Amino acid sequence: MPGNSEVDALTHETYRRAGFTGSFEFGVRPALLVVDFCRGFTDPACPLGSDTTAEVERTRVLLDVARARSTFVVFTTIAYDEGARATTTWLRKVPSLGELTVGSPWVDIDVRLGRLDHEPVVAKHGASAFFGTPLQALLVAARIDTVLVMGATTSGCVRASVVDAVQYGFPTFVVTDCCADRSAGPHDANLFDMTAKYADPLTSEEVVSHLQRLPETALR
Amino acid sequence: MPGNSEVDALTHETYRRAGFTGSFEFGVRPALLVVDFCRGFTDPACPLGSDTTAEVERTRVLLDVARARSTFVVFTTIAYDEGARATTTWLRKVPSLGELTVGSPWVDIDVRLGRLDHEPVVAKHGASAFFGTPLQALLVAARIDTVLVMGATTSGCVRASVVDAVQYGFPTFVVTDCCADRSAGPHDANLFDMTAKYADPLTSEEVVSHLQRLPETALR
Amino acid sequence: MPGNSEVDALTHETYRRAGFTGSFEFGVRPALLVVDFCRGFTDPACPLGSDTTAEVERTRVLLDVARARSTFVVFTTIAYDEGARATTTWLRKVPSLGELTVGSPWVDIDVRLGRLDHEPVVAKHGASAFFGTPLQALLVAARIDTVLVMGATTSGCVRASVVDAVQYGFPTFVVTDCCADRSAGPHDANLFDMTAKYADPLTSEEVVSHLQRLPETALR
Amino acid sequence: MPGNSEVDALTHETYRRAGFTGSFEFGVRPALLVVDFCRGFTDPACPLGSDTTAEVERTRVLLDVARARSTFVVFTTIAYDEGARATTTWLRKVPSLGELTVGSPWVDIDVRLGRLDHEPVVAKHGASAFFGTPLQALLVAARIDTVLVMGATTSGCVRASVVDAVQYGFPTFVVTDCCADRSAGPHDANLFDMTAKYADPLTSEEVVSHLQRLPETALR
Repeated sequence: MPGNSEVDALTHETYRRAGFTGSFEFGVRPALLVVDFCRGFTDPACPLGSDTTAEVERTRVLLDVARARSTFVVFTTIAYDEGARATTTWLRKVPSLGELTVGSPWVDIDVRLGRLDHEPVVAKHGASAFFGTPLQALLVAARIDTVLVMGATTSGCVRASVVDAVQYGFPTFVVTDCCADRSAGPHDANLFDMTAKYADPLTSEEVVSHLQRLPETALR
Repeated sequence: MPGNSEVDALTHETYRRAGFTGSFEFGVRPALLVVDFCRGFTDPACPLGSDTTAEVERTRVLLDVARARSTFVVFTTIAYDEGARATTTWLRKVPSLGELTVGSPWVDIDVRLGRLDHEPVVAKHGASAFFGTPLQALLVAARIDTVLVMGATTSGCVRASVVDAVQYGFPTFVVTDCCADRSAGPHDANLFDMTAKYADPLTSEEVVSHLQRLPETALR
Repeated sequence: MPGNSEVDALTHETYRRAGFTGSFEFGVRPALLVVDFCRGFTDPACPLGSDTTAEVERTRVLLDVARARSTFVVFTTIAYDEGARATTTWLRKVPSLGELTVGSPWVDIDVRLGRLDHEPVVAKHGASAFFGTPLQALLVAARIDTVLVMGATTSGCVRASVVDAVQYGFPTFVVTDCCADRSAGPHDANLFDMTAKYADPLTSEEVVSHLQRLPETALR
Repeated sequence: MPGNSEVDALTHETYRRAGFTGSFEFGVRPALLVVDFCRGFTDPACPLGSDTTAEVERTRVLLDVARARSTFVVFTTIAYDEGARATTTWLRKVPSLGELTVGSPWVDIDVRLGRLDHEPVVAKHGASAFFGTPLQALLVAARIDTVLVMGATTSGCVRASVVDAVQYGFPTFVVTDCCADRSAGPHDANLFDMTAKYADPLTSEEVVSHLQRLPETALR
C-alpha cells in the first residue's frame, strides 16, 4: 500500500472497519489504458509536463510484452479545437490546458512508447479517459474483462480514469510504478485512495507476470 | 406534422390519447447542432452519401443568420482511427462506415457550410452526436437552453441526436427542411416519430424568425 | 410508412448500396433486456398503455428458457420522484409520462413476466435503457457479449435502447415478435430502421434456439 | 499527506507553474448537490458511516437559506437492488457497500437535513453523483449555471462528483466545511486536489452570502 510512511495506522484501521476489504481477479482479456502520456505531460518544456522518464520507460517495457501477446492497448490524449478551447469549463480553472490544441505536438503520444497504428488513441476534453470519449465502447467491443491503468498524472487524469473504469464495470488495476505526477504528496495520496477504494495495485513486473500467464485462447 | 399522407388518422388519435401533447418554448440561448453534414454523407460519390444540396443550402442560410447573431454553432462528423475502425461494434453492422477514417476527406465538414474556425467539430463513433463525445459539456458550458438539430441522415444520426438532446435535458427542435435522408420513407417516418415524441418541428424560416427576435442580452 | 409491404424495393436497394450489409454473431453470454414492460405500458388503463398481451406472453416464454439457462435478465421501467417529475425536460413534451411516479403501480414490472428478485430493474427517466442508468455497468460486470432487446414501445424506448446498445459496443439483436407498440405504422417503420442500421432481427423462437445451444461453460 | 500544514511550498509553486491558476464565477442559478448524506454514511452504526454531525448541521443551515431563495437542491444516495448488488463490480472491491440495499434505512437521506418532497433524490451505484444517474439532465433542465458540492465522503463520492461536475461543464464549487470524511488525511488531501484542479473552495458562510446576493430574476 503506498504512502506507508504518511497514511497513519489509524486510517488503515478505519478503512478496514469500513469494509474496504475486497479485491479483483485478473481476467483473461486485459486492456492497457495509458493515460495522457502525450508530450504535453511527459515533456518538461510544456508547463503541464514534468520528468516522467522512468514511468514512460517502464510503460514501454510493459507495452512490448503486451504487444507480443496481442493484448489490447489504448492511449488517451487531451486535445481541444479552437471552439472547444474557448468553451470548455475546465479550462477556466486550468488555463494551461489550452496549450493542448489539435495539431500541436503536445497532444502527440510520447514517441518513446512506440505506439503502433492499430492502437487507438482516444482524445478527451476532461480528466477521465472515459468522459466524452468512446473508450467504454471500445473496451466492450474488444470484450475486455480487466483494465490496467497507468500514465499521468496520478492525482489527476489517472485517478479520474480509475474511478470511471470501476464505475463502468471493469475490474480495475493501477500500475503503480507506471504512474507519474509532478508532485510526490498528491501522487502518494492518490495511490492510497485509488487502491483503498477503486482498484488493486500492481507493479509493472507483476503485470508482466500476469500477461505471460494468460491462456492462449484469450489472445485474438 | 410530417408524413400527413402516410400516418393515418388513427395513429394521430392514438398518440393524442397517449398524452403526446406537449411542446417546448424556444429559449434565449439556442445552439445549432449540425449533424454529419460531412462529405461522407453530403457527397454522392461516397457510398454513405446522397444528394443533400437543398438541405445543405438551407442550413447555410440558417448558419449565416446565426453567425450574425453570435449564436452557438457546433458540427459533428464521424471519424475512426485505424484501431477504432477495427474494434467498433457498429461497423460490423454497417461496414461502409469504415470509409470515415481520420484524415480522409469524407470526414471534413462540407465546405458549402462555411465553417468558421471557432465553431467546434465533435468527432463521433456512433449515431448520436452526444455518444462518446464532449457535446453535452460544450452545450452546458455555453449555457445553451435550446437545441436545434439538423443534418443527415434523418432516420439515423439526426434521430439518435434528437433523442439524446431531450434526454440530456435540452428543449429540442428539429429543423425539418434541413434534415436529409437517402430515402423518403424513413425520412418521413422518423420526422413523425421525432416530432411526436421528442422535439418540436420548425422550418428553417421559422428558426430565422426566432433568431431575429432574440433579445440583445442573450448574445455573447 | 415503411413495413414489409411498404418499404419499397428502391429503399432496399439504396440501403444495400450504402453499405448496410453486415450482421452480428450471437455470442456466448447474452443478456435479455426487457424494456418498459411495466404496467404503465402494458395495461390499456394507463394513457400510455396498450394491449401488449401477445408480446408479453412471448417474452415470458423466452424468459423461462433464459432462466433455466441462468442467462442474464434485466428489466427497465420509468419512474420519477416528485422533484424529477417537475424538472425533467422530456415531460414537457409528453406530459402523460408524469403518471409514472415512484410508488405508483404503473412503474411495476408486469406480473405476467414473473420477475425474480435477483433480476435487476433499472429505473430510467428517458427513452433509452442506458440513459442516466447503470445498465452498461451491469452488462460489463456480467461480461455480456450479446444484447437481446424487446419490450415497449418499438418506436420509442426499444428503438432508443437498441441504438444505445450498439453504441455502447454490444452486438445487438431485436426480438421482433416481443416488441409492442400502440400503432402499427411506427412499429413497422422502426423495426425497419433498427434492423437496417443497428441490430439483427430474431424471432423469439430463434432466440430460444440460440439459448439452447449455448455451451455449458458460458453459464454462470 | 497534503493539507494546509502539509502540502509543502514546493508543491504550491509546482502547481502555480503548471498553470492551475484559474477560478470560476458564481452564477445566478446555482444548485446545491448534497452527496450521500444518507444514513449509511452519516450514522456511525453503519460500517460505512462516521460522525458527520457538524457537516450535516452546517449543510442544514445552508439548505434552509437555499430553500428560502428557491434554489435548486438535489440529493444523492447509494442503493442497490438484489440483482445489482450481486453484479456491480465496485462491490467486489468494497463489499460493505452491499449494506446499501433498496428499502434499507441506510439509503434514506438523513432526516436532520429536512428534505422536502420536491427535492429530487438521485440513487446511484457508483462514486460519482453523475455516473449512471439522470443528474446532468436535471441540472440542464433547471438551467443550472453553478454547482455547489458537499456531502460524504470527501475522498470518495464528493471528489468523484466534483470531477464530473466540471467535466459536464458546470462551474463547480466545493463547500469545504460541509464535506465529511472518516479520516483526516484523505479529507485534506482531496480538498487540496479538488481545489487545485477542479473546483473553487467556499465555506458555507460564503455560500450563504452568495445566495443572499442572487438577483430576484434568477429565482423560479
